[in-house]
Amino acid sequence: MNAKKVVERQTGVALWRQIADLIRLSISNGDYDQTGMIPPEIVLASQFGVNRHTVRSALAALAEEGLVQAIQGRGTLIQRKERLSFPISRRTRFAEGLGDQARETEAKLLAQAALPAAVEVAAGLGIAPGTNCIMLDLIRSADGRPVSCSTNFFPADRFPHMAEQVERLGSITKAFAAEGLPDYVRVSTELVARHADADELALLRLSPGAIVIEATAINADPDGVPVQFARTRFAADRVKLKIET
Amino acid sequence: MNAKKVVERQTGVALWRQIADLIRLSISNGDYDQTGMIPPEIVLASQFGVNRHTVRSALAALAEEGLVQAIQGRGTLIQRKERLSFPISRRTRFAEGLGDQARETEAKLLAQAALPAAVEVAAGLGIAPGTNCIMLDLIRSADGRPVSCSTNFFPADRFPHMAEQVERLGSITKAFAAEGLPDYVRVSTELVARHADADELALLRLSPGAIVIEATAINADPDGVPVQFARTRFAADRVKLKIET
Repeated sequence: MNAKKVVERQTGVALWRQIADLIRLSISNGDYDQTGMIPPEIVLASQFGVNRHTVRSALAALAEEGLVQAIQGRGTLIQRKERLSFPISRRTRFAEGLGDQARETEAKLLAQAALPAAVEVAAGLGIAPGTNCIMLDLIRSADGRPVSCSTNFFPADRFPHMAEQVERLGSITKAFAAEGLPDYVRVSTELVARHADADELALLRLSPGAIVIEATAINADPDGVPVQFARTRFAADRVKLKIET
Repeated sequence: MNAKKVVERQTGVALWRQIADLIRLSISNGDYDQTGMIPPEIVLASQFGVNRHTVRSALAALAEEGLVQAIQGRGTLIQRKERLSFPISRRTRFAEGLGDQARETEAKLLAQAALPAAVEVAAGLGIAPGTNCIMLDLIRSADGRPVSCSTNFFPADRFPHMAEQVERLGSITKAFAAEGLPDYVRVSTELVARHADADELALLRLSPGAIVIEATAINADPDGVPVQFARTRFAADRVKLKIET
């Protein structure tokens, strides 16, 4: 069930990117666990049937992602092998969800706006299109590494101070509590996967061609009244989503 | 929340592929719903800041996927806009899950083998590594279009005739019933997204650079005893996964 060591030419995806993907998959599969190192460039070049320059570009992209580190005179060390496992359940919470996989988690407010709800957001929140909403753009990190960026909408009449609360408390869960909602549940989640756009590449510090998993979710209060419409884009090569049905 | 019409050069992903992705997203977002047509090549070329040849390559890739069709003298028609919505729940079933989104669904047996369980499969099935398993490779289609390919493992002592049953009945659910298991439930699902490998591109009839969502799932009988380890790769641009928590 391992990925084949096959690259294809004339595909619209550069060889170095295909090779970076295959090495990432091998790291994730534990293929290099015995040594904790990526095989030498010359070995990879022969394995993939490409020249060393192409292998070097692939390793440079993985180094930029923080997945490997070149050590002068020793080779290329694997910095970490595991994707973060992120649970999707009735009680999905970012920081709690990661548990002891991260020493430190952060939710940083990037942008905020008050605006009328577009059709899709209104349908999700069960309000009339055009109703006032608070929009918050967040980026979430674990141990300093970006994991996801998200755009979140809240009904403005019920949660007028969400922006200030999230900025102050660094957590949507805590901001809800401060706004008088101590508990909420996930009522729906839809997932698609696609290539990251230019904004997502920059925010998530991904190398071009990278993939995001986009989760469109509705959270509701204990009475089932929607309180949040969230569109979260996870860096696909940093997470696996664990669905709890 | 629409993707920006931005392409980037020197990224390792060809311009035509980036543009194909952006057009696919626009189709999925309903941006062209009023006309049901892709804008003229010259408009797209100007919008993306590329030449018409590049736009033509992008449209050719989308035509190959069956998403659009060039009509002589009329332009490029959108063949369908919606991703299939596939539910992940306690009662995940392929054909039932698609409901009326497809007139016809098919599960075709591609390969079968009897083999000892590898460590990961054994852990999933709660059996000792090396225990005999039946492995079945399936491809599933909706209205003739491939949706997913999967590798499935079953404990051989309990379900000795799974291969013949699946081949005869075209359904794992029906095969389980024929083997004396009328009902089963999903106990865990893990999702990652990655670039499709060469086999997946061919099986799912995807254009190179395409993405798969890989679901690793365990199904169990009503007593909680695991009966199936499944690794399913969905063509990411043909499905959205609806998580029912």
